[in-house]
Amino acid sequence: MGRWVIVATERGKRPSEYAPQPEEPIDVAKDPFAEGNEHMTPPEVYAVRKPGSKPNGPGWLVRVVPNRFPALRIEGDLDKEAWGIYDRMNGIGAHEVIIETPDPYLPLEQQSVEGIARVFEAYRARMADLFRDSRFRYILIFKNHGRLAGASLPHPHSQLIATPVTPNHVKSKLEGSMAYFAAKDRCIYEDLLRQELREGQRLVYENEGFVAFCPFASRFPFEVTVMPRRQSPDYYAIRPDEILHLADAMKVSLMKLSKALNQPQYNFIIHTAPARRPRAGYWATIDSDFRWHIEILPRLTLIAGFEVGSGFYINPTPPEEAAKYLRETTV
Amino acid sequence: MGRWVIVATERGKRPSEYAPQPEEPIDVAKDPFAEGNEHMTPPEVYAVRKPGSKPNGPGWLVRVVPNRFPALRIEGDLDKEAWGIYDRMNGIGAHEVIIETPDPYLPLEQQSVEGIARVFEAYRARMADLFRDSRFRYILIFKNHGRLAGASLPHPHSQLIATPVTPNHVKSKLEGSMAYFAAKDRCIYEDLLRQELREGQRLVYENEGFVAFCPFASRFPFEVTVMPRRQSPDYYAIRPDEILHLADAMKVSLMKLSKALNQPQYNFIIHTAPARRPRAGYWATIDSDFRWHIEILPRLTLIAGFEVGSGFYINPTPPEEAAKYLRETTV
Repeated sequence: MGRWVIVATERGKRPSEYAPQPEEPIDVAKDPFAEGNEHMTPPEVYAVRKPGSKPNGPGWLVRVVPNRFPALRIEGDLDKEAWGIYDRMNGIGAHEVIIETPDPYLPLEQQSVEGIARVFEAYRARMADLFRDSRFRYILIFKNHGRLAGASLPHPHSQLIATPVTPNHVKSKLEGSMAYFAAKDRCIYEDLLRQELREGQRLVYENEGFVAFCPFASRFPFEVTVMPRRQSPDYYAIRPDEILHLADAMKVSLMKLSKALNQPQYNFIIHTAPARRPRAGYWATIDSDFRWHIEILPRLTLIAGFEVGSGFYINPTPPEEAAKYLRETTV
Repeated sequence: MGRWVIVATERGKRPSEYAPQPEEPIDVAKDPFAEGNEHMTPPEVYAVRKPGSKPNGPGWLVRVVPNRFPALRIEGDLDKEAWGIYDRMNGIGAHEVIIETPDPYLPLEQQSVEGIARVFEAYRARMADLFRDSRFRYILIFKNHGRLAGASLPHPHSQLIATPVTPNHVKSKLEGSMAYFAAKDRCIYEDLLRQELREGQRLVYENEGFVAFCPFASRFPFEVTVMPRRQSPDYYAIRPDEILHLADAMKVSLMKLSKALNQPQYNFIIHTAPARRPRAGYWATIDSDFRWHIEILPRLTLIAGFEVGSGFYINPTPPEEAAKYLRETTV
């Protein structure tokens, strides 16, 4: 809500004009996420393991470990306090790494639908677990793929950060959907999905449970949103059958992006409702007004001063063109 | 207001740990901003020229031209309309380039105080001129220095974008300062400046007109804010004596950053009030509650999925440490 994007068609770029990005070589002996190197990470907090394998040894399919260099620490109290006009609290939180596969060279989208579903189930399980810790207000799950997208290691992985406050961007999104619901008694995401399905020109892919489309106000060229058909504010409440549909929608979307844009670096982010929220007053209608969804953001353009300063993005490829190109890309 | 930043001291980096960034070679024959190549840009809209020199020829000190590949176009009507649940308008606006010097190799901070003041006077003059066009709501002036910071040409330049809507980030900032003023009958920027001057630990530099400090919730390591001592919401209302003080504060701040961090790429952004605003109701107190200022953002860390998704930044260098280091860096 309220986001404006400049679609600068005069700067229009065909997919092939975005420079290809080289693959990084991996030294498996030094890769802390490789099978056999489990001792190089903190002990696992979650894993899908082959029968007979032991925790923190080989024989796993997905493995979740605390980040070795956490941005936030799990132990301690928040000690919220005022500091003059500022507010301060201890950096309490969780920072975990979801290692998506033991194979350092297997990108997420190249896994089978079942393999991808295992990763999304790991997200769900970790989120559900951390929801029980009353210190956390928000749990953010995201993937940085490629160095320019912020990944410090090339081995396929995603990250989870549980924070003691709800981030501002999340609050703005929730306030937008709440205001829309208050005005129209309809969920903005349902209205948006209906318009996308009716118009069709920004659609990328759909299956029984999910719709993938290039959003009307795409900040990034070839940005793709994957949205569930079923209303639910919480990613962690996804059902097992929905996880398979989600894995299929993510596989197809990422494969199309990879083929169309020559394996671009990208981020994806799961947008979900905060962990703790009052059921009355503020956010009272959140179950009806907000819907969890995933944003896939190919990193083809740099984030420059204009974007940081204004929150206003310049997108050189109209979403209708991007979607048409992705629809026509066979995978 | 309302911004949270994770200061991750465990990831703490000394200035020398941020990798140096190589200088790009310039082919002056192909540089559209070089003296003698004036025909390679659209005709100038502003210039400071030596006596006897002719428009769009050599002999200038600062030159402002429309962007050859504008994100927004200057001609036409907005034609605002609804598009289902979305809103649409034509991409009307101005997109100009301020060429800071004819010398392709002279960074802004290496210019004399008078030279830098000429650049900031060019910003003021262009902003004052575009304020008169009723189609524009906001005028953003920013500088991308270095390729990773979004600059497509290495010749020292900055940019101006006039947009037909006020960007969301600007609105949020204004609403924050308005709410603070409504609650306390004091300007948040005055309170902030008093606290910074009293505590002193985040101060970088001060002169008669301006204070440079590393903000409490710095999103980027070594982020510096330059704030005027005199209350004024509008950059374009800066006085000639203030422009000299601003040029001095910018020169010292950028020189310190350049020396401490080995010539980092950076963005700076002038935060100023919108062009058109009602004097009653919404934003009625803007003259008292909001103060224009400049943010300097060294680009030492990448903007990754976490930041884009949450608006929550992880800063590996506490602002107190950054400020101490910058204070001790002699220039």
